[in-house]
Amino acid sequence: VKIQRYKRDGDVSYSLGMAPTMELLLARPYLAERVFVSAEAARGEALARLEGLCAAHGVPVEVGEKPFHVLSPKGNCFAIGVFRKGETALRGFADGANHVVLVSPQDAGNVGTILRTAVGFGFLDVAVVLPGADPFDPKTVRASMGAIFRARVRRYESFEAYRREHPSHNLYPFMLGAHTPLHEASFDPPFALAFGNEASGLPPAFAGVGTPVVIPHAGDIDSLNLPVACGIALYAASSYAKLSRQAVS
Amino acid sequence: VKIQRYKRDGDVSYSLGMAPTMELLLARPYLAERVFVSAEAARGEALARLEGLCAAHGVPVEVGEKPFHVLSPKGNCFAIGVFRKGETALRGFADGANHVVLVSPQDAGNVGTILRTAVGFGFLDVAVVLPGADPFDPKTVRASMGAIFRARVRRYESFEAYRREHPSHNLYPFMLGAHTPLHEASFDPPFALAFGNEASGLPPAFAGVGTPVVIPHAGDIDSLNLPVACGIALYAASSYAKLSRQAVS
Repeated sequence: VKIQRYKRDGDVSYSLGMAPTMELLLARPYLAERVFVSAEAARGEALARLEGLCAAHGVPVEVGEKPFHVLSPKGNCFAIGVFRKGETALRGFADGANHVVLVSPQDAGNVGTILRTAVGFGFLDVAVVLPGADPFDPKTVRASMGAIFRARVRRYESFEAYRREHPSHNLYPFMLGAHTPLHEASFDPPFALAFGNEASGLPPAFAGVGTPVVIPHAGDIDSLNLPVACGIALYAASSYAKLSRQAVS
Repeated sequence: VKIQRYKRDGDVSYSLGMAPTMELLLARPYLAERVFVSAEAARGEALARLEGLCAAHGVPVEVGEKPFHVLSPKGNCFAIGVFRKGETALRGFADGANHVVLVSPQDAGNVGTILRTAVGFGFLDVAVVLPGADPFDPKTVRASMGAIFRARVRRYESFEAYRREHPSHNLYPFMLGAHTPLHEASFDPPFALAFGNEASGLPPAFAGVGTPVVIPHAGDIDSLNLPVACGIALYAASSYAKLSRQAVS
């Protein structure tokens, strides 16, 4: 089996590392095509568990260094999963599924960190509007720590394309100039929280869409880091934070 | 002037990029020793403003490529500030200053992102407990977007050394196993929020210190990314979030 560098337009991607590959096999074993194990991998409990999952799901395991040289030249990676991207539709309004919509994010690592946070707060449906970072890039998979395998992730050619598919979600665009501060926002489900890119945020037109929300912060900084801002917003909008409001009021 | 690669034990560090160098000159011009401008820098408003600040504060400006080759070989950097680290004490209990305490963080970029968030939510006193990433590393400065120049940052050889200097702050260690969920925590000022490292969090002994707090999340992920967790905690503990509680109750 010849391993090629990751291709954005291809059908497969790679989970680089023991933890994300384990998540692949736990959450979406039917997408796994093959697992490579480095000859340098420590023979321990984690590896035995990985091999056991592969056996249980009929996923072939190969030992070899070549895929690691091609896909992870910097080392520090002892297992690689080859998986079909298997992009599927997001759950919709009727399912009551809340969405996270990332509009043209630039950095694949940031998208992975946001997926990790989203899954942590129960947001399992994530739209990525292009142009932007590729949510199936191995860098995204790695930064997500495998959380990508717990979520439905779908790419859209434009925000309008997302909106045509999901026209009824209540929209909350996060923008610096918004009038509603996060602590006064009430999120009416099912809702979609939208975030812009790292450098410039959402396009100004989003000010006229849904209920724009701002995370208030001191003027000493221009803006929050994107995964940090998403983390705060997802925490505040999640059921965990709603428990807080009930407890206080 | 000969420019050397950054040394952790040295007295100077570097702000790489126009934005963090501007912050150096706006917030701590007295620490700036020199500014280098790339011959490739666009002659525009930002550069004129930077040069104006240098002139106002008597900071020499040199045009040249050599420092950029040494300090930023990957390019995409058009201004460099050389600054004395000027480490100072944190403000204390009597000042009512809340602290952020990072215990052995591993990644300099993460420390910078956390500094950016801390300054954004009004936490201007940050302790970094060693061993760990160097808060004055140029990678930290860059990830902070220059926010490091708005904060007091001090390194400590151990948590005990920090505690000897600041024995009276109410301590809130953030730990996965804690009993108090974030939405039930009330932060009694002046307080110190403590966070462990990226891989393993705080040492278990912190369970017996102050009021340990957990940010509840789904079991589908092992933990939140460190800067994301810090962001949520700092947002929740800041006066911005307290406004929220007042509004709700």
